[in-house]
Amino acid sequence: MSDEKKIYELIEKLFPINRSITGDGVRETLSILREYIPLKIHEVPTGTDVFDWKVPKEWNIRDAWIKAPAGNKIVNFKKNNLHLLNYSVPVEKKVSLDELKKHLYTLPEQPDLIPYRTSYYSERWGFCMSHNQYEALTEGEYQVCIDSELKEGSLTYGELFIKGKSDREVLISSHICHPSLANDNLSGVAVAVSFAKHLLEKDLNCSWRFLFIPGTIGSITWLARNEERLNKIEYGLVLSCVGDSHGFTYKRSRQEDAEIDRIIEKVITDRGEEPDVRNFLPYGYDERQYCSPGFNLPVGCLMRSHFGEFPEYHTSADNLNFIKQESLKGTLEVLMDAAAVIEGNGTYLNCKPKGEPNLGKRNLYEKTGGGQKNSAEKMAILWVLNQCDGNHSLLDIAIRSGLPFQDIRNAADALLQTDLLRKFNKD
Amino acid sequence: MSDEKKIYELIEKLFPINRSITGDGVRETLSILREYIPLKIHEVPTGTDVFDWKVPKEWNIRDAWIKAPAGNKIVNFKKNNLHLLNYSVPVEKKVSLDELKKHLYTLPEQPDLIPYRTSYYSERWGFCMSHNQYEALTEGEYQVCIDSELKEGSLTYGELFIKGKSDREVLISSHICHPSLANDNLSGVAVAVSFAKHLLEKDLNCSWRFLFIPGTIGSITWLARNEERLNKIEYGLVLSCVGDSHGFTYKRSRQEDAEIDRIIEKVITDRGEEPDVRNFLPYGYDERQYCSPGFNLPVGCLMRSHFGEFPEYHTSADNLNFIKQESLKGTLEVLMDAAAVIEGNGTYLNCKPKGEPNLGKRNLYEKTGGGQKNSAEKMAILWVLNQCDGNHSLLDIAIRSGLPFQDIRNAADALLQTDLLRKFNKD
Amino acid sequence: MSDEKKIYELIEKLFPINRSITGDGVRETLSILREYIPLKIHEVPTGTDVFDWKVPKEWNIRDAWIKAPAGNKIVNFKKNNLHLLNYSVPVEKKVSLDELKKHLYTLPEQPDLIPYRTSYYSERWGFCMSHNQYEALTEGEYQVCIDSELKEGSLTYGELFIKGKSDREVLISSHICHPSLANDNLSGVAVAVSFAKHLLEKDLNCSWRFLFIPGTIGSITWLARNEERLNKIEYGLVLSCVGDSHGFTYKRSRQEDAEIDRIIEKVITDRGEEPDVRNFLPYGYDERQYCSPGFNLPVGCLMRSHFGEFPEYHTSADNLNFIKQESLKGTLEVLMDAAAVIEGNGTYLNCKPKGEPNLGKRNLYEKTGGGQKNSAEKMAILWVLNQCDGNHSLLDIAIRSGLPFQDIRNAADALLQTDLLRKFNKD
Repeated sequence: MSDEKKIYELIEKLFPINRSITGDGVRETLSILREYIPLKIHEVPTGTDVFDWKVPKEWNIRDAWIKAPAGNKIVNFKKNNLHLLNYSVPVEKKVSLDELKKHLYTLPEQPDLIPYRTSYYSERWGFCMSHNQYEALTEGEYQVCIDSELKEGSLTYGELFIKGKSDREVLISSHICHPSLANDNLSGVAVAVSFAKHLLEKDLNCSWRFLFIPGTIGSITWLARNEERLNKIEYGLVLSCVGDSHGFTYKRSRQEDAEIDRIIEKVITDRGEEPDVRNFLPYGYDERQYCSPGFNLPVGCLMRSHFGEFPEYHTSADNLNFIKQESLKGTLEVLMDAAAVIEGNGTYLNCKPKGEPNLGKRNLYEKTGGGQKNSAEKMAILWVLNQCDGNHSLLDIAIRSGLPFQDIRNAADALLQTDLLRKFNKD
Repeated sequence: MSDEKKIYELIEKLFPINRSITGDGVRETLSILREYIPLKIHEVPTGTDVFDWKVPKEWNIRDAWIKAPAGNKIVNFKKNNLHLLNYSVPVEKKVSLDELKKHLYTLPEQPDLIPYRTSYYSERWGFCMSHNQYEALTEGEYQVCIDSELKEGSLTYGELFIKGKSDREVLISSHICHPSLANDNLSGVAVAVSFAKHLLEKDLNCSWRFLFIPGTIGSITWLARNEERLNKIEYGLVLSCVGDSHGFTYKRSRQEDAEIDRIIEKVITDRGEEPDVRNFLPYGYDERQYCSPGFNLPVGCLMRSHFGEFPEYHTSADNLNFIKQESLKGTLEVLMDAAAVIEGNGTYLNCKPKGEPNLGKRNLYEKTGGGQKNSAEKMAILWVLNQCDGNHSLLDIAIRSGLPFQDIRNAADALLQTDLLRKFNKD
Repeated sequence: MSDEKKIYELIEKLFPINRSITGDGVRETLSILREYIPLKIHEVPTGTDVFDWKVPKEWNIRDAWIKAPAGNKIVNFKKNNLHLLNYSVPVEKKVSLDELKKHLYTLPEQPDLIPYRTSYYSERWGFCMSHNQYEALTEGEYQVCIDSELKEGSLTYGELFIKGKSDREVLISSHICHPSLANDNLSGVAVAVSFAKHLLEKDLNCSWRFLFIPGTIGSITWLARNEERLNKIEYGLVLSCVGDSHGFTYKRSRQEDAEIDRIIEKVITDRGEEPDVRNFLPYGYDERQYCSPGFNLPVGCLMRSHFGEFPEYHTSADNLNFIKQESLKGTLEVLMDAAAVIEGNGTYLNCKPKGEPNLGKRNLYEKTGGGQKNSAEKMAILWVLNQCDGNHSLLDIAIRSGLPFQDIRNAADALLQTDLLRKFNKD
């Protein structure tokens, strides 16, 4: 089965589960992911101090509905978990329409859609519905039921560490706290799983760490528990909204010229696509935490549509139809290409730097001269020889030359078979 | 009465006065300004050495005219002081048309307008007239009279120093040497007066120095007499041609990336207007002197139409109709906004830099999550927290974020009420 | 006779000669150049080690042809030397059409043209012809004759060193290895000769070195024999394809911001032309060698049409009709202008840096003030005074001001006649 089909099927499996920043929905989700990759599941107790925060109470939900005056259920959490204001406290009572309306959330400008709303840090209850349904509500007494529980429990997250030859780490993070929303962020979760599976089969130079965490509080919790190892992180990516049919959007790390920023822009460009590159903004996903000034990690965010800018964002329209296998495939390819750069970049030294070396006698040059064009292979060889003075990595050379990284890597590999190139050791 | 009406009325009052680089017209002008603000008036004697220059002889003018062969006055200084070549030496004689023409200045391409011409440093006499009038002159004997006087006297300028909490100075300079020209530069003079009046009512952090000086020799004289205090000047602006209906033009200081340059560009942009920003040029107004290489002060020049680029420039068309109250108002607003940045900028430190702090528990965050858009207030708070690492001032953050400076300032003020932000002391 | 006519006539004289990277064609070419300028001719024996290369065997050719089955010569080297694969080994035999075709080179997409092809470092034989002729070949036995010789001999190049007051060197290099191709590179060779002739008549500050060398192996040979003096080279240019009617293309040195790069871009811009400026690329002419990482000399390449990008490139269409006297003239002018900058640039100090000095009393300022425009002469003087703080050369000032270098040089010369400017000595 193709990678993209597997990714899509995983998303389909995860889609119906109700998730939040804590609770059994997260556990169920992670246990499904563990069928694919050897995740370690962490439980962090309610009340644990994590920097300026405390791990919140665990929230679980069994059922939630509104019954109309006539007694029929007009809103049913079991049909669509977006109907419930996420983290609602329990309630069971009869309310007038006016009273009910104080607890209803709709999208007047997208009247067919149910919004996704949360109230993690303020104890409230509420329901979300389409504005059309809201408008059709008649006077009378409504019965509301939210069979939820807020209790001392724990926050759950998944972590996969793939040890490579070196301690240098690459962090791949995706949030798992959204209920039935496909692009945001089952797409990120499922592509990360597939990406991890591929890396697990490889002999790696870098160590790779995958996090499947609830947004904000999850990354803050992980950062608090791993502060001493953050200095190992050389590259990082948050994956979100990577399944819709838009081209790639890349939000740079706070450093804005970190190597990961250059890599992602380069590998997308190498595909012949033009990334929509955004400067860092202190709003968005968990890159906000990784890039907080106390850490300032080189972590960017790879998206297709930019969060908040597509009409389906955080609505019931972000469903299984909104994401495309072809898009998931492309995202995985970008990640594999980025991994090829991260794993394969290096700095080399031209051992014959005075004039061009005689490539012909080493069979690296075509025999007949004078033609109009040069092969890309030969150009890559010339670029590597010209730029390998110890100051430029292969990534630098690929960017400078406009040639694909892989061509530059191949040229370096060919030259490493000769006496012309060697690995550069700074010391 | 609105600020702009007051500014316009001051211009109307000053317009008829004949001014030059010295003489009673300057004194009369400054004494009118002193009705508005507590100006100190300086008199610097003729012959005083000021760097490479000497203060010139003082020039005064009582009357000037040309009588046609028939005896009628065809040019009369008292009707329009532009008719006289400014700083003309006295003359009273009869001349042929040919001889007269050697002393006439016209604008052949703007045949209705009288040009403004000067001869400060070469003792000559002359008249300016419309080219149409010039063309209509008939043969015959003309009588010319210039009842002027060049004598040992003094150069006069006005200065207002507003002491703030700190010694750091802001210099606001406008030239007062032009006769009946409204935009160049009664607009600059009168807006400066209004700006100073506003600052006088405030409790200021910086000290503000306003100069009302004759162009070139005035600023050179002031620089020569104040050389030891120039190192206190942290920001400076020359105001000229700020009353016409064109958008803003800003000429950067010689440093080109001085903070004043960034401030003026930012406050104009924050208004939703696009400034026409020019790099420094060693020609123009007194910024030429402040930015000479021996001083290189951070002084830019704020204009609406760029000097020399509008057809009314230095002609009788630069009259009271050419300037607009609305434009004067906008210029004053830009200056007030710039003052808000100069007075209100600062560098702060996020005290909880690891991850985002919990804004909800400090009532700095909306309670319901998941919406498409973030409020500008919240974005400003996130930007301040993210960038306040000691390396970025609020101005830097405002520019980086694209948010108005005032929003960033407000966010910092809100955060300073909490344990999240404190003033950054470099040492 | 005009320069351009002389240049064109020299090209006409050189055009028929068959040249290669070694051999009598090169010698004949250089001996003609010696009629114009006092070239020193070097002979470097076959087998000499030059970095990673050895000087190749010397190749000479007397005749070459193909006879059709009917006995008539269908390809004749004496009619067009492009017909022969350059450096072909001797052959004399009868071959079938199929066998012959293995040795034929054509341009299917430009079927009227004969390509230029070489096989310097692989011992082979071959012919080039138009694709139309190739298509018309009929079955039968063909007689081929290449009366060439590959022997121990030498590589020949020409060098002209013009000693200036200082040791600082300017390198002008053009390749002389192409047979009957006019733009590539008799244009470069002949313009270089004319340029050298002009410099020989001048009293020079810098020393100028002209090289007329076979491409690649020639520059590598020269570099190997002159390694100890390379540190004297402060500017360098390769001249190639400078005779066609295209605008200027300038390929920057590997340093990309070397002074020569700024100079060439400036002098072309000063002419009112817009150079097509390319970043360095490790492919092209001998700048590849000068800019190899072991040397990294500040050597750019001046072209009109960029090598490889015009349809006539390396074909029989690059003939005497393809180059224009007007273009050769323009190229010479650019070189003369560049020489004026190289010879005339300098750093000076404003001796009266506080405020503008009084230009009027030194007769450097017009007497009547107030006009709309300033003369270019006065602006140049103001720029020189404003920027001569020891940090900016006249070239810097010319670029910064947008004024032609010559205006800035003239202003500096005028100011050097006064007490306002002096030469800046860093120590």
